[in-house]
Amino acid sequence: MTHQSPNVGESRLERGKRALAEIDGAAGQNVVAALADIAPDFANYLFEFPFGDIYSRPGLDLRGREIATIAALTAMGTAIPQLKVHIEAGLNVGLTKAEITETIMQMAVYAGFPAALNGLFAAKEIFAARFPVQREQAA
Amino acid sequence: MTHQSPNVGESRLERGKRALAEIDGAAGQNVVAALADIAPDFANYLFEFPFGDIYSRPGLDLRGREIATIAALTAMGTAIPQLKVHIEAGLNVGLTKAEITETIMQMAVYAGFPAALNGLFAAKEIFAARFPVQREQAA
Amino acid sequence: MTHQSPNVGESRLERGKRALAEIDGAAGQNVVAALADIAPDFANYLFEFPFGDIYSRPGLDLRGREIATIAALTAMGTAIPQLKVHIEAGLNVGLTKAEITETIMQMAVYAGFPAALNGLFAAKEIFAARFPVQREQAA
Amino acid sequence: MTHQSPNVGESRLERGKRALAEIDGAAGQNVVAALADIAPDFANYLFEFPFGDIYSRPGLDLRGREIATIAALTAMGTAIPQLKVHIEAGLNVGLTKAEITETIMQMAVYAGFPAALNGLFAAKEIFAARFPVQREQAA
Amino acid sequence: MTHQSPNVGESRLERGKRALAEIDGAAGQNVVAALADIAPDFANYLFEFPFGDIYSRPGLDLRGREIATIAALTAMGTAIPQLKVHIEAGLNVGLTKAEITETIMQMAVYAGFPAALNGLFAAKEIFAARFPVQREQAA
Amino acid sequence: MTHQSPNVGESRLERGKRALAEIDGAAGQNVVAALADIAPDFANYLFEFPFGDIYSRPGLDLRGREIATIAALTAMGTAIPQLKVHIEAGLNVGLTKAEITETIMQMAVYAGFPAALNGLFAAKEIFAARFPVQREQAA
Repeated sequence: MTHQSPNVGESRLERGKRALAEIDGAAGQNVVAALADIAPDFANYLFEFPFGDIYSRPGLDLRGREIATIAALTAMGTAIPQLKVHIEAGLNVGLTKAEITETIMQMAVYAGFPAALNGLFAAKEIFAARFPVQREQAA
Repeated sequence: MTHQSPNVGESRLERGKRALAEIDGAAGQNVVAALADIAPDFANYLFEFPFGDIYSRPGLDLRGREIATIAALTAMGTAIPQLKVHIEAGLNVGLTKAEITETIMQMAVYAGFPAALNGLFAAKEIFAARFPVQREQAA
Repeated sequence: MTHQSPNVGESRLERGKRALAEIDGAAGQNVVAALADIAPDFANYLFEFPFGDIYSRPGLDLRGREIATIAALTAMGTAIPQLKVHIEAGLNVGLTKAEITETIMQMAVYAGFPAALNGLFAAKEIFAARFPVQREQAA
Repeated sequence: MTHQSPNVGESRLERGKRALAEIDGAAGQNVVAALADIAPDFANYLFEFPFGDIYSRPGLDLRGREIATIAALTAMGTAIPQLKVHIEAGLNVGLTKAEITETIMQMAVYAGFPAALNGLFAAKEIFAARFPVQREQAA
Repeated sequence: MTHQSPNVGESRLERGKRALAEIDGAAGQNVVAALADIAPDFANYLFEFPFGDIYSRPGLDLRGREIATIAALTAMGTAIPQLKVHIEAGLNVGLTKAEITETIMQMAVYAGFPAALNGLFAAKEIFAARFPVQREQAA
Repeated sequence: MTHQSPNVGESRLERGKRALAEIDGAAGQNVVAALADIAPDFANYLFEFPFGDIYSRPGLDLRGREIATIAALTAMGTAIPQLKVHIEAGLNVGLTKAEITETIMQMAVYAGFPAALNGLFAAKEIFAARFPVQREQAA
């Protein structure tokens, strides 16, 4: 899976909805649903700019895009719910568990050990839910 | 270039020096030199942990590692000198200019437009110094 | 309500207690009570500097001050409990639900979509508690 | 000036260009020009999402929007160039110098004294350039 | 207790394990155990670099080191679990409750009142668990 | 020098002015002077709350207070000018160069290597100006 190549005649909103469904899956739909009674327009912006515009661009494949997002959210440390969504998204676009844990561990260098630890514990939770039977060592 | 496979019998310090030279090039050497009269031990830690330990691990190739670092430093916004070093490092390990600019632009979604803008201007400066003749559109 | 005009002869502490009660209401009192057995002096500083000094100044009305605080706490992303207190405070000084959600949504531009999303979910919780019957669209 | 009411038949890009010109003035144009040879598409995103979408929304007037942006950028402390652009923008949409300095000073409460000091020195620079003759006390 | 003077012939890993046990106590062991099935190598890095290298250095005693860590984690506001571990560690190396609460309160000046408040509430929780009978005023 | 014990009958402003002069020296005066034409009241708040209230408290000596401040400002990475002022202040209250560099180096663990590097380069600049003749190794 490289990137969300736009279909002919598709609007930003349509393209963004398709990209969000493919990348974030059910977790993305839950965020959109939760916005319905507080800021429904914001759900459209979320479809349109991040997914319709940015994730649909050529130049960087989706695996690279999810490495970038997982790294940034781990380093920032202020968006654990969104980090979990993107650990799932990373698996959805073909990252291995090892690639995800390596990305997070590397953040110890740039944002400190606590940021990396909190990211690893988020990954542990997502991996446990997604791979319930075999829970072997990730690295 | 996938990762810094350890040579037999090589110490962490030796492996880290080799990895830092290959990845960061002259920019990394300048950082080490600048530490000599204030905290020379810290230069050794910089060789050993980030480069001897983390960047030398299998599981994520160096292209993925530099995408992660460029994303995180752009998002954090507190380490522009180090971001510049890693934009150069990204080129050194085989990232295209487009992959670097896409990584930085994507940070508008996660850390805001100012973070992405400041990252793009850092990339512009590095690209101009590295590709002085042809300075075509990056994206 | 423009600002907390100081009463004649009132101390900073008295003025701050009055301002905190009017602006933050019960939520502010809870914070002060929770400090009693760990750092009671800090409760006084909280009355005196933020509320006795800053919020009591002329030059910016309380509606503007709460927009500023809601924006900053949303963008920082490290103080969700305090953001909730100030979403309530915003309603207390006359901001509409729409003004609060617009302020939070705008932070997507400056601090990224996760910061805005986490802010909107904080507002959703406060609005649901404060307006239990009618829970119509905020924007 | 309340908000950028959309003209009939205007695209997001057109509306965003008009809004950016009215709000940010020459400073905004300089940012767009600087993007031309590194990431020209990003200039379009900057027109479209922040200015075509967000600043053009009803629900919060432009004075409130600039208070929010000045507060957030002061508190974050990672975007001084953008803070300066928005201190100018605040003046452009009708904020007084006192309203701007009060917004920045208030950030001492939420993000610490250094953030407020660095914001005040940014304002001092913008005010000195914009009001060269009379440089009276702002507060 | 000044610093973790290295024993003759001890490896970084051994020295780090010893230092972590003495400084962080059971809380440190819990972190290491939680890493076992997600990133066991990261537990070794945690022993080696922070504890085997940094905390074992002369030049700053462990009381000073814990003041530094408590201050930084309070100011950053993104690592409350790690802040709690280091409030315990501060007590382990001989800081008084007053020294810990003073360090945290001071962060109101540098990182804002919310950061200090969230730090004080973390300290309140640790002190209550550690000193269950006498829970007198900390300052 | 332990802490700024209040003199009998001294106001917060007087005590704060005395404490700022003793701790920050000329660097503190420069900050106050720079505020005169933009926000003179803010200079008073700076005297009163950080220096008149916080630094004048018993419970933590000034050496501990400066370790805390140097650690926090290094970790935050958004306040290099203020970090430099407090590296000087650390020397003023009796910290050794080694204690200051150790505090900064330790931040690599909690806020990442770039934060520690930028802190060390700030210390290098201050030490070079303050100790022009002998510029021996700090650690």
